[in-house]
Amino acid sequence: MAEVVIFLGSKSDESKVAPCMQLLKELEISYFVTICSAHRTVQLLEKVIEREEQAGCQVFICAAGMGAHLAGACAARTTHPVIGIPIAGQNLAGLDALLSTVQMPPAYPVATVALDGAKNAAWLCAQILALTREDLRAKIKEQRILMQQEIERQGTELSRKYQV
Amino acid sequence: MAEVVIFLGSKSDESKVAPCMQLLKELEISYFVTICSAHRTVQLLEKVIEREEQAGCQVFICAAGMGAHLAGACAARTTHPVIGIPIAGQNLAGLDALLSTVQMPPAYPVATVALDGAKNAAWLCAQILALTREDLRAKIKEQRILMQQEIERQGTELSRKYQV
Amino acid sequence: MAEVVIFLGSKSDESKVAPCMQLLKELEISYFVTICSAHRTVQLLEKVIEREEQAGCQVFICAAGMGAHLAGACAARTTHPVIGIPIAGQNLAGLDALLSTVQMPPAYPVATVALDGAKNAAWLCAQILALTREDLRAKIKEQRILMQQEIERQGTELSRKYQV
Amino acid sequence: MAEVVIFLGSKSDESKVAPCMQLLKELEISYFVTICSAHRTVQLLEKVIEREEQAGCQVFICAAGMGAHLAGACAARTTHPVIGIPIAGQNLAGLDALLSTVQMPPAYPVATVALDGAKNAAWLCAQILALTREDLRAKIKEQRILMQQEIERQGTELSRKYQV
Amino acid sequence: MAEVVIFLGSKSDESKVAPCMQLLKELEISYFVTICSAHRTVQLLEKVIEREEQAGCQVFICAAGMGAHLAGACAARTTHPVIGIPIAGQNLAGLDALLSTVQMPPAYPVATVALDGAKNAAWLCAQILALTREDLRAKIKEQRILMQQEIERQGTELSRKYQV
Amino acid sequence: MAEVVIFLGSKSDESKVAPCMQLLKELEISYFVTICSAHRTVQLLEKVIEREEQAGCQVFICAAGMGAHLAGACAARTTHPVIGIPIAGQNLAGLDALLSTVQMPPAYPVATVALDGAKNAAWLCAQILALTREDLRAKIKEQRILMQQEIERQGTELSRKYQV
Amino acid sequence: MAEVVIFLGSKSDESKVAPCMQLLKELEISYFVTICSAHRTVQLLEKVIEREEQAGCQVFICAAGMGAHLAGACAARTTHPVIGIPIAGQNLAGLDALLSTVQMPPAYPVATVALDGAKNAAWLCAQILALTREDLRAKIKEQRILMQQEIERQGTELSRKYQV
Amino acid sequence: MAEVVIFLGSKSDESKVAPCMQLLKELEISYFVTICSAHRTVQLLEKVIEREEQAGCQVFICAAGMGAHLAGACAARTTHPVIGIPIAGQNLAGLDALLSTVQMPPAYPVATVALDGAKNAAWLCAQILALTREDLRAKIKEQRILMQQEIERQGTELSRKYQV
Repeated sequence: MAEVVIFLGSKSDESKVAPCMQLLKELEISYFVTICSAHRTVQLLEKVIEREEQAGCQVFICAAGMGAHLAGACAARTTHPVIGIPIAGQNLAGLDALLSTVQMPPAYPVATVALDGAKNAAWLCAQILALTREDLRAKIKEQRILMQQEIERQGTELSRKYQV
Repeated sequence: MAEVVIFLGSKSDESKVAPCMQLLKELEISYFVTICSAHRTVQLLEKVIEREEQAGCQVFICAAGMGAHLAGACAARTTHPVIGIPIAGQNLAGLDALLSTVQMPPAYPVATVALDGAKNAAWLCAQILALTREDLRAKIKEQRILMQQEIERQGTELSRKYQV
Repeated sequence: MAEVVIFLGSKSDESKVAPCMQLLKELEISYFVTICSAHRTVQLLEKVIEREEQAGCQVFICAAGMGAHLAGACAARTTHPVIGIPIAGQNLAGLDALLSTVQMPPAYPVATVALDGAKNAAWLCAQILALTREDLRAKIKEQRILMQQEIERQGTELSRKYQV
Repeated sequence: MAEVVIFLGSKSDESKVAPCMQLLKELEISYFVTICSAHRTVQLLEKVIEREEQAGCQVFICAAGMGAHLAGACAARTTHPVIGIPIAGQNLAGLDALLSTVQMPPAYPVATVALDGAKNAAWLCAQILALTREDLRAKIKEQRILMQQEIERQGTELSRKYQV
Repeated sequence: MAEVVIFLGSKSDESKVAPCMQLLKELEISYFVTICSAHRTVQLLEKVIEREEQAGCQVFICAAGMGAHLAGACAARTTHPVIGIPIAGQNLAGLDALLSTVQMPPAYPVATVALDGAKNAAWLCAQILALTREDLRAKIKEQRILMQQEIERQGTELSRKYQV
Repeated sequence: MAEVVIFLGSKSDESKVAPCMQLLKELEISYFVTICSAHRTVQLLEKVIEREEQAGCQVFICAAGMGAHLAGACAARTTHPVIGIPIAGQNLAGLDALLSTVQMPPAYPVATVALDGAKNAAWLCAQILALTREDLRAKIKEQRILMQQEIERQGTELSRKYQV
Repeated sequence: MAEVVIFLGSKSDESKVAPCMQLLKELEISYFVTICSAHRTVQLLEKVIEREEQAGCQVFICAAGMGAHLAGACAARTTHPVIGIPIAGQNLAGLDALLSTVQMPPAYPVATVALDGAKNAAWLCAQILALTREDLRAKIKEQRILMQQEIERQGTELSRKYQV
Repeated sequence: MAEVVIFLGSKSDESKVAPCMQLLKELEISYFVTICSAHRTVQLLEKVIEREEQAGCQVFICAAGMGAHLAGACAARTTHPVIGIPIAGQNLAGLDALLSTVQMPPAYPVATVALDGAKNAAWLCAQILALTREDLRAKIKEQRILMQQEIERQGTELSRKYQV
């Protein structure tokens, strides 16, 4: 059983989305990941959503570029939270993917994170799942502390390097 | 039987899309128009596309705003040409609807016309249908001549008004 | 006790955010709403977050315009999900609020909805809370069916009005 | 005789447009391709359009960058469908080519596809020609199924690779 | 005989272009103004350019909106300077008209002025014609002095009004 | 003697800039305000800058729209801090004024505030002058406390109004 | 004596502007080129403009990037035509340079060409100078014919290469 | 004691911000630099601001990318001038960092410089500090003269190189 399903709109998005899978693994959140196009394999999309919902999936994550309809198509077929990762392409500086993902009509929201924000999709997912898994909240806090310590360490190093 | 099906993403788009229906009527192109959301009534969308295709529909026209997925959702379910009319909303100067409509992935094109370009959707539709209806080509040419005459008339008037 | 806390960045956002409060009420989700600026009353922000978290708040919703830092400032102080509503101002077509809200750094995501998307913030909130409140999922489904019926009714009306 | 005429605005667009020619060939759609600038060789443009229309050409495809007027200039001289491929240049993220191509005035539509969307121009062309060539519709459907199978295969592979 | 020809892409641009005619008149520059669409009346465009060039026209001014091809179409048919006035429409904040007008390919420049910059088209025109009409340079200088005096007068008034 | 000089690029900016004068007055900062165009009255600009600098002016504030060169032109003629207020016009959503003001070359910075941000120009000015006038820092802190109290009051009122 | 003066805002623009000098040379138009910043060497700018105007200079060409004020600063100091070449930088896709150059206030127009459009600045310059030098018009026509022949040759080659 | 505090939002900004430190050093302005995230180490931010203010710091400089909240977060905690350097990332052409930094609400201005404008942050800082350190004004003027001489030298070289 997977707590989270991750849909990639295209195989070419793999390298940008991999950090999401890695972080979920580190946070011990179970997931199922596959490629599923909003246009090319819409029936597969419906099938996977239905199957995984029944198996207990709680959150969906969708990564797609260009006129990114994938997260919206997923949101149309589930009442579970859908997180959208807009993937920047070669043109338009990423505006196409961002606007297509975030500008959803009433009752079908997509929880949009930053362009190419694969890690934050995992973090947001963890924050949502933490509503029922208290261990996740502890892990998030712990990770934040580690990051803060790392930043403080980097800051001290930088202060020294540029000391006048 | 309708040669063309027009989908509006929302009732609020009616006034902007009406010129499309009016022009199709003038060109004696039969159409069926309804409201159908890519997210809210996706099953209805599938049903209407299938029914109208079997009844002989040749071209689809989709008008939608914001993260406009409607034309793409339609294109995913038919191999007939799909014309997209991006409808500008209150924010983002229309960029969201335009980019969501036009930036489609390979094999699922949407023939996108200008923002709020309802009339041009009808003209493009007529140009496509003219492949099998020679009378339509004649009508397009005739209309163009009338427009040219009107512009020439307006031009002459303007020349006189500002004559030095 | 409030399940949700809503922060408005400014009193001037009230009319755009009111539909969020109204929908939460209809969905029987308890909330606490106040005005809190990321810059002007940052200590109040910290105090309210801490107090409401201890009282059992599960989700935060932040609405702000211009260089909208409010949702991010909230996300920096809680591990609960933070939903951001970018509020479009008079300039820049809303791009400033949207980009400031969505482009968050790793580990501090903001679940961003559409510009002025107050209703969708409430819907997303309900989807998240439905992880522990099964009644909410039923309500969302019910509401979606009502909306679909309304769209179908509007569609039928429109079809008749423009029948050729 | 060519069913389709493809105009490139500049020799420098060749590598981006080549996939269009290749796909038309695979779909057994006959085409004539040449370079023709809306500004530099406008008389040649007129001559080729007239000659090819008389020879039975049904659809025009125009690829151009910057203030891309080529598709519009073509649309002004034919009543056949004109498909525009905006070609992104080094500056402006492609917005100049996209807006110049799609924002056409009434009665002279350009069926615009995505930035650098050469393949989709060929697909859209095939969808239009399929109105009179039933074999093309079969081919489109066949190709879509192959693509779906490829995506499903890639999805399965990805699922395994990231299995937890 | 007219020294300048002004083309409007549409009658709807009249109110925005009128200040151009008025200023030319004040500067005693003779002009011929008419409506001429790059797409709808391209043959008329060619005819007027040829006729007016032979009659001694030195500069062309073109005002158009949306995917504004008019100035470019004019530039393709004359070696005289072509001044382009991009006219902002309801959508896209004027970016479509501006980019379509200014982003011209080598050898076919359009001297682009500001969005809705009808007056500056006239000023630029006067600066160009001043190469052979010394009286125009004197007039430009004179007008500039009047404007400077007016600004200084307004400045003094403002200084007084807000004096502390 | 004025501590601050305010330049307006055009009389039409008056209503947007007036809050700057008003706030400076409330903060008891002396100012001289006038209209001065970077292009139309560049010599006046030079003269006023030189005169006011000698009279003891410490900070310059420049408000201008469109391709707003005024702040930059001022910065080229003084080594005192120059604050730029980009004024949004009818087109381009204010991007032209913002980018023209902020994108300055090395050694000639303009301290840019928000579009139409007249009040913040005054606040920034006060923060700078507070380096030598300790009373100003106290006033800024005092005003911030009043604003915080007002926000808290508004927040309490809002909380009550929407109480569930 | 130089007919044209070319100002570069920075030495780093040299490689992008060189084609302008080269083309002027080919067209036998005399020019003087130097580096002159609108902010850093504004007095030099004034001096060169005055000196070259008296020596018979007819047209100014200004190339600058970022918040490109150079062409405007030049336009403020001459009544001769000023051509602006916006130079795209690393950020903002060139929008900053384009908008800063083109959005000029009344009476101080800059004849703006495409981003990085150095060649077109030279062509426009030639078109303007051709008002008094009939040989230039002949050269422009001749060059256009050579370009047309080259395009036709490239087109024929391309047609053969992709022949089906 | 440091006159200036520089905050970097992330270690990855170091290479873009280094010229700021270098210039401050050349101008003999003392500084303290560290890494401090508006979200990840907000308490450290507060602590450093308080400590350095008490130690006599006069100006803050903040460099951050994406939805850059750092300068705003700093401005919320001090009444001293805060200079913001928006750092351009891989997407959105830098618009996200620029708009997030500059679009601040009343009473909490950020003196924003150009994208990646680290040097100008130092220059602006020097201009502000020069209010109390007359030696800095002399240094700025001296540096400007050196830069002018360098530009004049480059200009002379360029003039010779392209002499016709």
